[in-house]
Amino acid sequence: MHTLELAKPDGRRMTLYARRPLPPDLQAPSPFADPLAGGAHLRWHPVRGEWVTYAAHRQGRTFLPPPEYNPLAPMTDPANPTEVPVGPWDVAVFENRFPSLGGFLPEPPELIVTTAPAQGRCEVVVFTQDREASLGGLPLDHIELLLGVWGDRTRRIGAEKEIQYVLPFENRGAEVGVTLHHPHGQIYAYPVVPPVPARMQQVALEHRAKHGRGVLEMHIEAERRDGARMLYEGRHAVAFVPVCARYPYEVWIAPIRPFESFAHLDDTVRADLARALKTVLLKFDGLWQRPFPYLMAWYQAPTDGQPHPESHLHAQLWPPYRTRDRLKYLAGTELAAGFFAMDALPEEKARELQQVEVNIP
Amino acid sequence: MHTLELAKPDGRRMTLYARRPLPPDLQAPSPFADPLAGGAHLRWHPVRGEWVTYAAHRQGRTFLPPPEYNPLAPMTDPANPTEVPVGPWDVAVFENRFPSLGGFLPEPPELIVTTAPAQGRCEVVVFTQDREASLGGLPLDHIELLLGVWGDRTRRIGAEKEIQYVLPFENRGAEVGVTLHHPHGQIYAYPVVPPVPARMQQVALEHRAKHGRGVLEMHIEAERRDGARMLYEGRHAVAFVPVCARYPYEVWIAPIRPFESFAHLDDTVRADLARALKTVLLKFDGLWQRPFPYLMAWYQAPTDGQPHPESHLHAQLWPPYRTRDRLKYLAGTELAAGFFAMDALPEEKARELQQVEVNIP
Repeated sequence: MHTLELAKPDGRRMTLYARRPLPPDLQAPSPFADPLAGGAHLRWHPVRGEWVTYAAHRQGRTFLPPPEYNPLAPMTDPANPTEVPVGPWDVAVFENRFPSLGGFLPEPPELIVTTAPAQGRCEVVVFTQDREASLGGLPLDHIELLLGVWGDRTRRIGAEKEIQYVLPFENRGAEVGVTLHHPHGQIYAYPVVPPVPARMQQVALEHRAKHGRGVLEMHIEAERRDGARMLYEGRHAVAFVPVCARYPYEVWIAPIRPFESFAHLDDTVRADLARALKTVLLKFDGLWQRPFPYLMAWYQAPTDGQPHPESHLHAQLWPPYRTRDRLKYLAGTELAAGFFAMDALPEEKARELQQVEVNIP
Repeated sequence: MHTLELAKPDGRRMTLYARRPLPPDLQAPSPFADPLAGGAHLRWHPVRGEWVTYAAHRQGRTFLPPPEYNPLAPMTDPANPTEVPVGPWDVAVFENRFPSLGGFLPEPPELIVTTAPAQGRCEVVVFTQDREASLGGLPLDHIELLLGVWGDRTRRIGAEKEIQYVLPFENRGAEVGVTLHHPHGQIYAYPVVPPVPARMQQVALEHRAKHGRGVLEMHIEAERRDGARMLYEGRHAVAFVPVCARYPYEVWIAPIRPFESFAHLDDTVRADLARALKTVLLKFDGLWQRPFPYLMAWYQAPTDGQPHPESHLHAQLWPPYRTRDRLKYLAGTELAAGFFAMDALPEEKARELQQVEVNIP
């Protein structure tokens, strides 16, 4: 993996990643000339016991590009600067211009609840230079590179002392609110372990104390033994509709053995994990012969400097569709109670996805 | 409050509520003749440590009414039966024909995770006979009656030994997935305290142990002292945009003193709480002069037979709009991490709602 570190004219950091060597004279462009201003702060939610971040500067953005403008396309016209340069890079990572966490941090306001500077990081990950591509459609070694990029980002950002958790994710599709269709994801790095991973850590720790092994490791064994919901079974990685899916087409992707994070993967496992991911995404797009929207989040161990043998790197993919033309809305019971109600059986949805044939050379 | 208990032809229970006496000879209709079949089961989610309910019979429903058919309108044509009778009732409550919890409970399947019958209850609450009405537009004494109905349901359902938590909620608007526009809400009664209320109970217990008073009670005091985000301040009830809002137009409504549930309210407090609720809903609809969608959930104490001095009945209303024409999508950070990121400051959104004038006689 070849990397090149750059600084944008407005001070934001950027890293280019490539399968081949990168020319050292590449310049990082930016649609913005002035340095970051504004900034977010955290407020404590006393009733739920969690932080909320307020990035009010995001609303005031004066940058309203025309619809055809693609800020993630390589910059060919200096009069219309984009976020990424022309060059032989495969994946580009840069700091979000309007971060919800990190960036310029003003003094937080004094309020009736505890407040704090919104420390953290929000990065944009451009998956490819090709606006028309999709993550699942990229060549295997390109996807492997991306998994390596997530590892590199986790290692670097996780080493910063204020960062406790690194979450790579992709929101795909207008149905989940995405307006920019160039293939890209995001990385959020938090100053605390956020509520959902915190709960999962607690469950995993309790399970390990009781059983001496990881909860996901044992669950993967059970899914493989059962077999009814498997979508991919490689030597090192698997993908399946979990027996406890909360979304009709929910899929989990994981290495079979527990690795704490992308930063802990070896090449062989990473390669098989890339194949599992590509298989799932091609099945998604093949199901109705159209781009399949989803939210994909990769859960890793906290980056608090402690060992986390209870953690097991894995992705959860949550597509918003129930059927070809009906969305699953999260409403009363899901959002207010956190108790998910499903109309479909995971076994049926798994069967639909199993029947989509995928050929990966 | 006058009540009448009825049984539908398919065995489902129904209760009518009214401000005036009800004739005892009313009959409960049903669009369905055959008794409930199918049924839901629970599966344990080992990684999040929570239950998920599967009501696969819901998908197979053969009942596909024409768009103009309103099952919540009083039944005037026996050839087209609806769910509610003609008569002088104000609020009708009946069991959902396709419940996610409760109803007919088959043996749960044997799977690789723990399963259980989906005990519980799903009720539909018809707020009014008038299809064109809205909850906020109902007369104050009608809203008071509804709050009394929620209390009666909480008392009755909560007394059932398998029920641990009763959640009244309303999903309003196509934006949150509602297809049936007759004003109505739902009540879900759970066999466990679900994840979100469970977390809030834990936070409230810890707060009370430390401070000797309730977390919401003290927060309401602080909001009143501050005043910047108040929308309604009565003698017994308040409404405000909380300083820690997770949705741009989030509003909380609560009695000032802590009451465990609707079942614990006295008449004076209930009347003021109805006024607070009406004020908020009229402000919502007045903001952009159109029906304002929201999810409204009323959090109460668990119904486990224990006293819960840490609990404080209140509503949280979560409208999906960020601005007049932009929705807030829950994506990576909100859903996968549980860490909410806001573009707007609660103080600004409160000001917008404060400026909407509301006249309640």
